[in-house]
Amino acid sequence: MSENFLPTESYKGVRDFYPKDMAIQRYIFNSWSKTAEIFGFEKYDASILEPADLYKAKGAENEEMVNQQTYTFIDRGEREVTLRPEMTPTVARLVAGKRRELNFPLRWYSIPNLFRYERPQRGRLREHWQLNCDIFGADHFTADVELIALAYQTLIDFGATPDMFEIRLNNRKILSADFARGAQKYGVDLKDEQILKISRLIDRIEKINPSDFEKQMVDILGNDEFSKYLLERLTSDMDDEVIHKTEEFEDLKFVYDGLINLGIKNIKVDLSLMRGFDYYTGTIFEIFDKHPGGTKRAMLGGGRYDNLTAMFSSDKISGVGFGMGDVTMRDFLETHNLLPAKINTAPELMIIPLETKFNLEGEKIAQIFRQREIKTAVDISENKLSKKISDASLSGVPYVMVIGEDELSSLTFSLKNLSLGTTESGSIDTLLNHLTTHF
Amino acid sequence: MSENFLPTESYKGVRDFYPKDMAIQRYIFNSWSKTAEIFGFEKYDASILEPADLYKAKGAENEEMVNQQTYTFIDRGEREVTLRPEMTPTVARLVAGKRRELNFPLRWYSIPNLFRYERPQRGRLREHWQLNCDIFGADHFTADVELIALAYQTLIDFGATPDMFEIRLNNRKILSADFARGAQKYGVDLKDEQILKISRLIDRIEKINPSDFEKQMVDILGNDEFSKYLLERLTSDMDDEVIHKTEEFEDLKFVYDGLINLGIKNIKVDLSLMRGFDYYTGTIFEIFDKHPGGTKRAMLGGGRYDNLTAMFSSDKISGVGFGMGDVTMRDFLETHNLLPAKINTAPELMIIPLETKFNLEGEKIAQIFRQREIKTAVDISENKLSKKISDASLSGVPYVMVIGEDELSSLTFSLKNLSLGTTESGSIDTLLNHLTTHF
Repeated sequence: MSENFLPTESYKGVRDFYPKDMAIQRYIFNSWSKTAEIFGFEKYDASILEPADLYKAKGAENEEMVNQQTYTFIDRGEREVTLRPEMTPTVARLVAGKRRELNFPLRWYSIPNLFRYERPQRGRLREHWQLNCDIFGADHFTADVELIALAYQTLIDFGATPDMFEIRLNNRKILSADFARGAQKYGVDLKDEQILKISRLIDRIEKINPSDFEKQMVDILGNDEFSKYLLERLTSDMDDEVIHKTEEFEDLKFVYDGLINLGIKNIKVDLSLMRGFDYYTGTIFEIFDKHPGGTKRAMLGGGRYDNLTAMFSSDKISGVGFGMGDVTMRDFLETHNLLPAKINTAPELMIIPLETKFNLEGEKIAQIFRQREIKTAVDISENKLSKKISDASLSGVPYVMVIGEDELSSLTFSLKNLSLGTTESGSIDTLLNHLTTHF
Repeated sequence: MSENFLPTESYKGVRDFYPKDMAIQRYIFNSWSKTAEIFGFEKYDASILEPADLYKAKGAENEEMVNQQTYTFIDRGEREVTLRPEMTPTVARLVAGKRRELNFPLRWYSIPNLFRYERPQRGRLREHWQLNCDIFGADHFTADVELIALAYQTLIDFGATPDMFEIRLNNRKILSADFARGAQKYGVDLKDEQILKISRLIDRIEKINPSDFEKQMVDILGNDEFSKYLLERLTSDMDDEVIHKTEEFEDLKFVYDGLINLGIKNIKVDLSLMRGFDYYTGTIFEIFDKHPGGTKRAMLGGGRYDNLTAMFSSDKISGVGFGMGDVTMRDFLETHNLLPAKINTAPELMIIPLETKFNLEGEKIAQIFRQREIKTAVDISENKLSKKISDASLSGVPYVMVIGEDELSSLTFSLKNLSLGTTESGSIDTLLNHLTTHF
């Protein structure tokens, strides 16, 4: 054997899931699944490998993202293949592929892993998981309400209370109407390019100081008054009264009132909310962690798009959806102390043969407990009894049963509860009944 | 919009999981997890992205496999990265990485997706999932027995009966002893290269006709008698009696008897069983589907290796493990009619507003049922009532509740059981109690 040992670190920017971390990840995924299914959502998935074309269709500007931020390579059949960086193009492909057979509206969810091909930075991983929930083919705004209610409920079901987070709500149409109104009012011939630039600027509003923000806006628009008008709208305080008396807020009002009606009140209408993605056309929303020590980024975001499947067919299918990452989710749960104190992955019973010659007898007894669905392992190591018991205790095993000559000849066994220090003795059947009443 | 639509097919050689297929996959994975956990195994995972070096360490011969059959590419940091083609190197990395902290023996399992970079062929996918179960750090043969018992139980827990499959058992040491004994007896100076070639030949024994097999063996060994001796051993009928009276079968006998002791009797000792992988050093086994229409390949295979973590450190850690693919598993379940007739992913209750103006009321009522963990959706489409009811029925929804003016003013609702055609009427509370006794 060579002494040039390989390092045991994972590839840079991804995570290893040892049993303890795996248990936390499963706890999060199971809770996500349960909430989504209670809302009638069905799970789907696809391969992480996708044709690269799927991510190129959004236009030249997107190509930069595709080339620089995705894992893309050429396969043996000269196909260009990409590790999916987001799930929306995949689910659009699936929906379009069976659009004639599927019964709309669809409620679909998935928990895909996604890949970003960038230099790893603190908190920015190359692989992460994301809960994706979408309703397809429902134009009615109830879909928007339901989807936000589902996002809200995913947090509540982890034990979060509404004061821990805030739903920020907006509608893309309001800004579009403001652009049009302002352009007319101030006689500006607003170009698409300018709209795009302003949208990007607004998307970064929380990262720029107010005077720089204003300056950049004037630069783009070339008009002070128009800028002032937009700025006022973007930063205006949207309380309940303002929302209800403003005429052009029809869609937003419906969603806002719908949520209030469902008892969801931690909502803040924020006209500066943009969501970076191009495809949103109506409702947009994000959920922010309100904890002062919490992540400053959105934990979750989504919105409505008029036509999800435009790249695949001329049949229009609308959608409303959100995505929620596992890293920020875990951060939130840790910040607010919502993770269960103990997620135990250890067996419920450890059978401890006194000597290795009793190992097989141990397996036979284990088989009886396993048939009754008690998680049972046998310590088949060559360790001493005391080490075997302390190992079981350290791993969080609640019960141990030592077997040796005496137990096997008398058929009387002892079951020790490691945390209480109590012992129960009797036949295997007696102890089995004792345990099945405990699990 | 351009008329150059993208195709909706997946990348070649991988699968899309629409809800129905996803449900079958989850059914399989859940059953795998449950069986492994009942045996006291803990789940782990890692990223699909691994340093390419992990697969290169096995020697030059392996490089061909690495270059030709893995997805390997260079990242922005000039790192060579591979999509994992198997899980063993990853789990070896994890075990070695925390070998000082972990409490051996470990019982670990995972259900990773694995990637093969080859031209897709029928039944050979570029991505598949695999149940991997391993016991690390247990040198005692009870570990081999337990692991095979677990493999057996995974099939039994799907409803399989022992007559449907066969466990083929062997031990690498027997062949090694035969090589040594034969070489001495027939005065052949057997080279490592020859041993490798013969091992490969034996691995293909079922694919070659007997006379060709013999001819190739003579070619490699350059000795007729030695060939005859080996052939006789490889093809000898290993019944219970032969196994017990043959002296050098110590390890094999222990495992064989241990399994019989646990009531596992569908075992065939097969001295020609090789398992293609280099790292096995002791027990090897495979499980074959006995159905005449079933897959002719092994459904599952594994074995014991003396030192799993040799590439990472000089600490020796033994292991015994197996892997079982999702594609062959599903084939087996379908061939033997073991998949549940109906895996329903539809909501348990569909609330059907008579008009879209009642949609939000529908969501409010849904919220009450969801709080009691009844999977509830609202049909917020603009379809007619009859279409809404037939859609629910087609999707497998068992209960529907229509809401309109009358229901909302009288607060008396009707719950229809679509398969029985029966109707229950009353307040929401009454119907809620009715439903919670059904789910």
